[in-house]
Amino acid sequence: MTSQKTSNSTHSPSSTVHSRIVALAGGVGGAKLAHGLAQILPPEDLTVIVNTGDDFEHLGLNICPDLDTVCYTLAGLANPETGWGRQNETWNVIANIERLGGVSWFRLGDQDFATHIERTRRLKEGEPLSQVTKEFCAAWGIKQTVLPMSDSPVRTIVDTDEGELAFQEYFVHRHCGPRVKGFRFDGIEGAQPVVGAAEAIEAADAVVICPSNPWVSVDPILRVLALTPTPLPEREGQKINKPVVAVSPIIGGKTVKGPAAKMYAELGIEPSALAVAEHYHDLLAGFVLDNQDKQLSDNLKTGKILVTDTLMNSTADRARLAKDLLQFVGSLL
Amino acid sequence: MTSQKTSNSTHSPSSTVHSRIVALAGGVGGAKLAHGLAQILPPEDLTVIVNTGDDFEHLGLNICPDLDTVCYTLAGLANPETGWGRQNETWNVIANIERLGGVSWFRLGDQDFATHIERTRRLKEGEPLSQVTKEFCAAWGIKQTVLPMSDSPVRTIVDTDEGELAFQEYFVHRHCGPRVKGFRFDGIEGAQPVVGAAEAIEAADAVVICPSNPWVSVDPILRVLALTPTPLPEREGQKINKPVVAVSPIIGGKTVKGPAAKMYAELGIEPSALAVAEHYHDLLAGFVLDNQDKQLSDNLKTGKILVTDTLMNSTADRARLAKDLLQFVGSLL
Repeated sequence: MTSQKTSNSTHSPSSTVHSRIVALAGGVGGAKLAHGLAQILPPEDLTVIVNTGDDFEHLGLNICPDLDTVCYTLAGLANPETGWGRQNETWNVIANIERLGGVSWFRLGDQDFATHIERTRRLKEGEPLSQVTKEFCAAWGIKQTVLPMSDSPVRTIVDTDEGELAFQEYFVHRHCGPRVKGFRFDGIEGAQPVVGAAEAIEAADAVVICPSNPWVSVDPILRVLALTPTPLPEREGQKINKPVVAVSPIIGGKTVKGPAAKMYAELGIEPSALAVAEHYHDLLAGFVLDNQDKQLSDNLKTGKILVTDTLMNSTADRARLAKDLLQFVGSLL
Repeated sequence: MTSQKTSNSTHSPSSTVHSRIVALAGGVGGAKLAHGLAQILPPEDLTVIVNTGDDFEHLGLNICPDLDTVCYTLAGLANPETGWGRQNETWNVIANIERLGGVSWFRLGDQDFATHIERTRRLKEGEPLSQVTKEFCAAWGIKQTVLPMSDSPVRTIVDTDEGELAFQEYFVHRHCGPRVKGFRFDGIEGAQPVVGAAEAIEAADAVVICPSNPWVSVDPILRVLALTPTPLPEREGQKINKPVVAVSPIIGGKTVKGPAAKMYAELGIEPSALAVAEHYHDLLAGFVLDNQDKQLSDNLKTGKILVTDTLMNSTADRARLAKDLLQFVGSLL
């Protein structure tokens, strides 16, 4: 690893670089970076393709946690404390469902319920998820393009030492307690990429993999979109001809949020930014890791490296990281 | 009409008469009298059979307005201002559905949404409505028996000068504007009476028809239960062998709430307590009308008469009317 290969944000010029970006996002971490990019880029230059493997049917409703987190965040409606759900939320529906003896481990707020009720109604009437999402984005004043990865249901199943668990069962109900042995994505073979995804990537300057969980947030998107360095055997994939840049969700061996680090450890891989870079292997033209992990850059074999502050505690942090990232992307083109 | 035939509550003894009662109820008026009876009778002596003809599927949810009004009222959870919906209600779900461009003319509160979501989920899983209602009553601390008239869907259709309208479309969306020409009850021929209704009536001393709308609240119940003075041609009805007492929902030619008086007028019948008594014709062993309508009692041809204050503005009013009614029922046995 030469110093030429490594950019450091503290030395980057402060001018803004505008590129057309497709961002691949899971939940909170992905939403934050997407929001950062949305602060810098003209709306027409940002498309966010969101994981739907976490989606599930619950209380008779179609719930899309990652999609909603991305949309609420882009719309400025997200709860700043949790990263998911709505700000100024009330909890009267779930409290009353609980009183009736209903299932209440998945905490849905009242404003959030509106999203699920209205989405479920439209899906039942035959509207594709992408169309519902487009209309919801318009209603929420989101000008960027937000696409679910597919209009067909894909469901992440976590294989654990206690058997197979549906993702939200593992993640929310069991608090990621059971030990992970692997993952599968029900329905992924038949799931077509959402209409518009290929066009957005074709029109983009680069694809950004947000700091989301590589195993359960990003992998489903990569597989549905057939975004691989080599064609996938199970579908007519094609080698992506745009630079792909990933931002590590692991900082100092830990994840900011979620079970990615725990998953790496349980799968026998030391959790680190290095492990993330190796996860995406030949796909990457560039990789972004935190200043805390600077010492790892010499061991990174993948593309160019940007070392910068990747923690996004504030809205300004998100914009700053997005700016650094866009500078870095510019250097790859 | 002799004075012997007419009881006047002001002359009734104040001792409490306990009878086993089956009350037939629609929405707000029915719920109030049911609540009055519940204040007087031991819980095991009151069964309320509720109209489900107003039920509808809306926003993907199974909504049972009369059933919920009766249950919320018996549980002390009802909004005292409106008579329907929940007290201390919030409206965040419907406000956000409206923001998403969803249908919002049927105003559902957040606590109320919980009822519909949880009921819909249980119905989808195959639980009969009566079982769901039983469980909800237990959760809400209701000790009386509340039965939907049938576990099969019955849907009231209002025939108007603007064509046929589903009941809630007519009632809530169109504010009872279109002129009524008649009614039909989709599904009523195949709808079996709820399990327990016949047994409750068999065990009862009397059946009370609450001050609910005769056309759209009470008629569906009477038809499903085959509660007629003569067997109905369309089902194996049998003459009811218990005294039936009706309380007029029309006072001084007007209804306290709802479109009953307007319906009578549009159907070419002068709206009055007299018209209500004639509606139920030979079914009645007794009829209760308001002091305001005292002058009508001489024209009443149906059974015994109780003239009393039937307006139920307060909780105490409900109990007082129930007490008068039970005294009157006692005089019929």
